[in-house]
Amino acid sequence: MTIITSKTNNLIKKTKKLLQKKHRSHSYLIEGWHLFTEAEQAGAVFNNIFVTSELADRVRGFEQVRLVTEDVLKTLTESPSPQGIVAEVAMPESAFPDWTAGRFLLLDDIQDPGNLGTMVRTAAAAGLTGVFISEKSADIYNQKTLRAMQGSHFYIPIYRTNLLEVCSQLQQHAVPVFATSLAKSALDYRKLPKTDNFAFIMGNEGQGISELLLQKADRLVHIPMPGETESLNVAVAAGIIIFSLI
Amino acid sequence: MTIITSKTNNLIKKTKKLLQKKHRSHSYLIEGWHLFTEAEQAGAVFNNIFVTSELADRVRGFEQVRLVTEDVLKTLTESPSPQGIVAEVAMPESAFPDWTAGRFLLLDDIQDPGNLGTMVRTAAAAGLTGVFISEKSADIYNQKTLRAMQGSHFYIPIYRTNLLEVCSQLQQHAVPVFATSLAKSALDYRKLPKTDNFAFIMGNEGQGISELLLQKADRLVHIPMPGETESLNVAVAAGIIIFSLI
Repeated sequence: MTIITSKTNNLIKKTKKLLQKKHRSHSYLIEGWHLFTEAEQAGAVFNNIFVTSELADRVRGFEQVRLVTEDVLKTLTESPSPQGIVAEVAMPESAFPDWTAGRFLLLDDIQDPGNLGTMVRTAAAAGLTGVFISEKSADIYNQKTLRAMQGSHFYIPIYRTNLLEVCSQLQQHAVPVFATSLAKSALDYRKLPKTDNFAFIMGNEGQGISELLLQKADRLVHIPMPGETESLNVAVAAGIIIFSLI
Repeated sequence: MTIITSKTNNLIKKTKKLLQKKHRSHSYLIEGWHLFTEAEQAGAVFNNIFVTSELADRVRGFEQVRLVTEDVLKTLTESPSPQGIVAEVAMPESAFPDWTAGRFLLLDDIQDPGNLGTMVRTAAAAGLTGVFISEKSADIYNQKTLRAMQGSHFYIPIYRTNLLEVCSQLQQHAVPVFATSLAKSALDYRKLPKTDNFAFIMGNEGQGISELLLQKADRLVHIPMPGETESLNVAVAAGIIIFSLI
């Protein structure tokens, strides 16, 4: 197999663009062996697999393998130390879920890719049905988000859409919508009734949940904190509530 | 007040060194107005307060204020957009806690500053007594750790020490030591008895808790995950368990 040694190779130039959100419409890049094997196990479709010669043997069975130099590989990742493999993965075409039942996480304008990715990972581990993210939330195919998701996004559908409409749809099907609030008048999360169907909204790190969405929620919920500092990271708060509900 | 305009000013050069762990023995740097006010409210001791002229009025009451240019301020922080203030804060001299009782979090070789900081924040919000971190854990005065702690470290003592010795001390005083484990034979965390005193160990992101510490623990605990991916971020897992225990 010929090895691509030039950073100005057309395929490399085209692929490199996928590091920017504006150029991602049907595919995205993952890096590292761990994420690659997760993708493979989940049945993801690879458009291209770029490897350095050290890893060539490990991807022998694949069709779309492109051998590249270490320097060329570096241009395809934001990581200072790529682990020998970058793959272009086709975005899944996920149909919207059955609205009549399920356990959903709704993320309103989450800013930090790490927080967004960590919440997707938690939702997948908890066996939720799907994650809805607002249009202004961080990008799910950002390298930092992908790192935080640890491959969990291969196992849970994620939809970027208008959360107010999602709430309306869910409520029409009698799926209760809960929202986190710092207000002490909100219900203690431990007193939420156990239910097979629910949607839970988590809000922006600084601003919380937008006013319109809060008004839309069926119930406001809070986490009582006995400590001197009453503040939790949003992904930690989501984990505490989700695992108390399942 | 004279304004420091040179990056080679002696005080600036000396202060800048505090960005590196090896130069921090008695003080560290915090940046941004939010963290500064948290520090002030918590009664932290400021050795120096560096501000740009825009913020000078807001720190009028303090003695150790140094006026600097935006360019000089930038050399004192790793943030690409410092918010006009960097302060040198004296490290607290915290005496070891009373071993006979309390609720402790033990962090074994936590690698990621964000995870470390987030767990300190969770421990503070939960009102735990103290956090012990192993010698190889990430630095608590790293700018990323400080950002994740959100000032919570002003309210909970943190000790860097040998965790095996901590366990021995706690166990001598009948404080049970729990450890997280991925083994399904471990106790479901929801079945842990409610107790006023406990210590909980969380392990390294990749390797988990070291073998010797695991053996030392009184009980192994795990979080059942009904999803297809059975993996949680360490700080989320810590949050779920800590809040189930308090």
